[in-house]
Amino acid sequence: MSDAIAALRAHLAPIHDLNMAAAVLEWDQETYMPDGGAEARARQVTTLRRLAHEQFASDDTATLLDAAERADLDASSTDAALVRVTRRDFTQAVKLPTRLVAEMAEAVSHAKRAWQEARATDTFATFAPHLQRVVDLNIEQAECYDYPEQPYDALLDLYEPGMTTAEVATVFADVRTHLVPLVHDLTAAAASADASVLHRHYAPDAQWRFGLEVAEAFGFDMTRGRQDRSAHPFTTNFAVDDVRLTTRIDPQFFSPGFFGTLHEAGHGMYEQGIDAALSGTRLAAGTSLGVHESQSRLWENLVGRSRPFWNHYWPRAQALFPSLADVELDAFYRALNHVAASPIRVEADEVTYNLHIMLRFEIEQGLIGGTMAVDDLPAIWNDRMESYLGIRPESDANGVLQDIHWSLGAIGYFPTYALGNLMSVQLFNQARTDLGDLDAQIGRGAFGALLEWLRTKVHCYGRTRSAAEILHDATGQTLQAQPWLDYIRQKYGALYGIA
Amino acid sequence: MSDAIAALRAHLAPIHDLNMAAAVLEWDQETYMPDGGAEARARQVTTLRRLAHEQFASDDTATLLDAAERADLDASSTDAALVRVTRRDFTQAVKLPTRLVAEMAEAVSHAKRAWQEARATDTFATFAPHLQRVVDLNIEQAECYDYPEQPYDALLDLYEPGMTTAEVATVFADVRTHLVPLVHDLTAAAASADASVLHRHYAPDAQWRFGLEVAEAFGFDMTRGRQDRSAHPFTTNFAVDDVRLTTRIDPQFFSPGFFGTLHEAGHGMYEQGIDAALSGTRLAAGTSLGVHESQSRLWENLVGRSRPFWNHYWPRAQALFPSLADVELDAFYRALNHVAASPIRVEADEVTYNLHIMLRFEIEQGLIGGTMAVDDLPAIWNDRMESYLGIRPESDANGVLQDIHWSLGAIGYFPTYALGNLMSVQLFNQARTDLGDLDAQIGRGAFGALLEWLRTKVHCYGRTRSAAEILHDATGQTLQAQPWLDYIRQKYGALYGIA
Repeated sequence: MSDAIAALRAHLAPIHDLNMAAAVLEWDQETYMPDGGAEARARQVTTLRRLAHEQFASDDTATLLDAAERADLDASSTDAALVRVTRRDFTQAVKLPTRLVAEMAEAVSHAKRAWQEARATDTFATFAPHLQRVVDLNIEQAECYDYPEQPYDALLDLYEPGMTTAEVATVFADVRTHLVPLVHDLTAAAASADASVLHRHYAPDAQWRFGLEVAEAFGFDMTRGRQDRSAHPFTTNFAVDDVRLTTRIDPQFFSPGFFGTLHEAGHGMYEQGIDAALSGTRLAAGTSLGVHESQSRLWENLVGRSRPFWNHYWPRAQALFPSLADVELDAFYRALNHVAASPIRVEADEVTYNLHIMLRFEIEQGLIGGTMAVDDLPAIWNDRMESYLGIRPESDANGVLQDIHWSLGAIGYFPTYALGNLMSVQLFNQARTDLGDLDAQIGRGAFGALLEWLRTKVHCYGRTRSAAEILHDATGQTLQAQPWLDYIRQKYGALYGIA
Repeated sequence: MSDAIAALRAHLAPIHDLNMAAAVLEWDQETYMPDGGAEARARQVTTLRRLAHEQFASDDTATLLDAAERADLDASSTDAALVRVTRRDFTQAVKLPTRLVAEMAEAVSHAKRAWQEARATDTFATFAPHLQRVVDLNIEQAECYDYPEQPYDALLDLYEPGMTTAEVATVFADVRTHLVPLVHDLTAAAASADASVLHRHYAPDAQWRFGLEVAEAFGFDMTRGRQDRSAHPFTTNFAVDDVRLTTRIDPQFFSPGFFGTLHEAGHGMYEQGIDAALSGTRLAAGTSLGVHESQSRLWENLVGRSRPFWNHYWPRAQALFPSLADVELDAFYRALNHVAASPIRVEADEVTYNLHIMLRFEIEQGLIGGTMAVDDLPAIWNDRMESYLGIRPESDANGVLQDIHWSLGAIGYFPTYALGNLMSVQLFNQARTDLGDLDAQIGRGAFGALLEWLRTKVHCYGRTRSAAEILHDATGQTLQAQPWLDYIRQKYGALYGIA
């Protein structure tokens, strides 16, 4: 390793430690911290993040990075990737004026409270001025960065590096064109189906055990990770060898706990699968939120909601849950894959989910591009829900106010959920081709080859390769809607007898 | 608040945050962290502690402290206490050369592994050179500080600020003189007693519930704290309003889980009782380890092993534990207070415990004073065990190698356990005098007045008052052996029919 690289690494290591320490404090805050700890904890996390930012966005980093860029590096080496990614992060960190960061933090702290109140009281007007402020600051933030065509590109790039608004819009238009009529047909066909079996009693301990059994069978390594409870499930990591999942259990509803665990385990296996050589550096993270979501959705949906999977796990499920004693596998499988237009994104099935995302993407573009006004959002929201899903939310609380993201200042984040869905099918199709009998493997509970394929093609690279590079190297394709549409048509067409 | 004080506080706040963050990471390490996380975690904690140390032992601190000392402060004010305590800590931090700190860290990392191996294989020789190194470095450390008479004073002062070796030696001599014959008589009288009832099956869930029920009845506030499991019980805090207890449960032994919980809750209530105005500063901590231990032992022993306590809780214990169905309260109470000479300190009853401490105190003085050689320790240990307790450990693993403290570099720590025992009785006696019918209150499960007394007399001050000041203001006494000896004589004399 050159001296310049060694010096850069030595400088970055404690900054990484500070950020990982902040992640531990945030994890504890969501899992175990008593209420009394909140005030001090906010201060402690702020201090850690501030110190990390100050040390990173410093002249020292600039000097070390300049020197490292002059070093003679193989462009495909980890060192070169480290320099590239550090430059990207550094540019983002220093381009944002401290004033703007502070204003955003201030705005978000008010916006979050206002959003909570607005949702609780179903009064969009309470949130509207705060959302306007968040939009204005996001536009200001976007203008601090370079972007290819439009300000929204800069915001999207924060979550999905390298992806442009135009690319997303093209792919999403493709999805929407074909999906809207498909959803219409499927929801009509599924209208008489009954998913109430999922709402029986499922003992929390058994739910917990079943979810973890499957997560471990998938390959989530419990010696390098664990699972705890939290109100809102998430995955975080403090090292490649210390990855934390959380889940929540509803004793009267099978899906959130079980599929939540599989989903988070998918995120977790991505983090655990990053090359150990990247450990302790900013390369040891998922390369984009879209790729991250492709991993969680692949295990949750393409494996966990598949027929082969349930052929294998049905006896275990029946053994664990007395509520399933009188249920046929076929009925359970249909319930798990019930399609219905619902106003709430997080409760949406895998068919309708992407339409919830399209809607948000269009609104975000409208807000940032200046073609939509905040005050018009409830009407726009409800009109598009009706046009895409055939339903109108009965309240703004269950409509435009349902998600926390905007109140946290995050605009440009939503599209990554749908990108993940699309990528998950592209990757899964390729794995099926490469592995030959993937469905049969899943049908006997053998997930090792699939995980190994994902490790080799996706996980190991961390941030050394972009989402586009990973997708292209693994599948030979760019991001596309067609594979996902084909998957949906085939699976749900068969389920609901639609050609 | 003067500008100088405000500036000092602003400088110290993020340093405190860093130390509290390190405490969160250490807590997680002992409670939830998967094995895989160990390597990264060690690095993260080191980074946080190093940054905190660098920022504290800095010229900035010196300048701000000098200015604060020139401010016109009421000597009894919190600000004055902050300046005083910060000066003390600063002096300790800067007097230690970085080289020595690094050497100690290095020595301890080897010593801990060697100790583990030595204990596992019962070979003192494996640990001896490491212990010698720890002793040498402790002597070097002591010489960096000022001390009244002897180097051991400086070490003791790290854990029990203001206490001298001579004071401890005088009080301990008093204890030993009277306790050795008393232990001889009591162990003889108790020889035929049977404590096997404690070793029946006690369901872990019921143990957990019972311990927490009592801890909450004592006044441990679960909205500002919680309890988790760990291999070695401890209490830590990340804020006055976020205090974490840990305990361990043995399904076949009642005492460790239950009395461990009461003990740690005693520590925890001390931390929770610190004046909220001290929160976020280095004054928000126990004033000494001895005072801390007085609080844990008071609740564990003086309350939790008392007859009035069990008069109240016996029905609840019988309801929770089927193993107690055929047991009489009297027999259970005697089992809980069984006296026996045991080689292991952490398993010792409250009568013999202090003799285990005396032994360690004498050896530490001998090592630091140069009157004992490391190689002679096994023989010295066993001889004194025989002389004080009438037993010889059957192995060094259960003798001189039993405790982890020396391998961690801590010399001067052990005496605080016994100091806590002595202080606990002095404080409890005064509370009984002040409260009038304390035993009756305990007998009806009413602990509020006792906790309030401790809050007012001990807890609220944090580090604004020294151990000696707190003890004297609360009881009118200096540290004394007699009250503890009287308590032991009276309680155990009655139990075992000895005058």
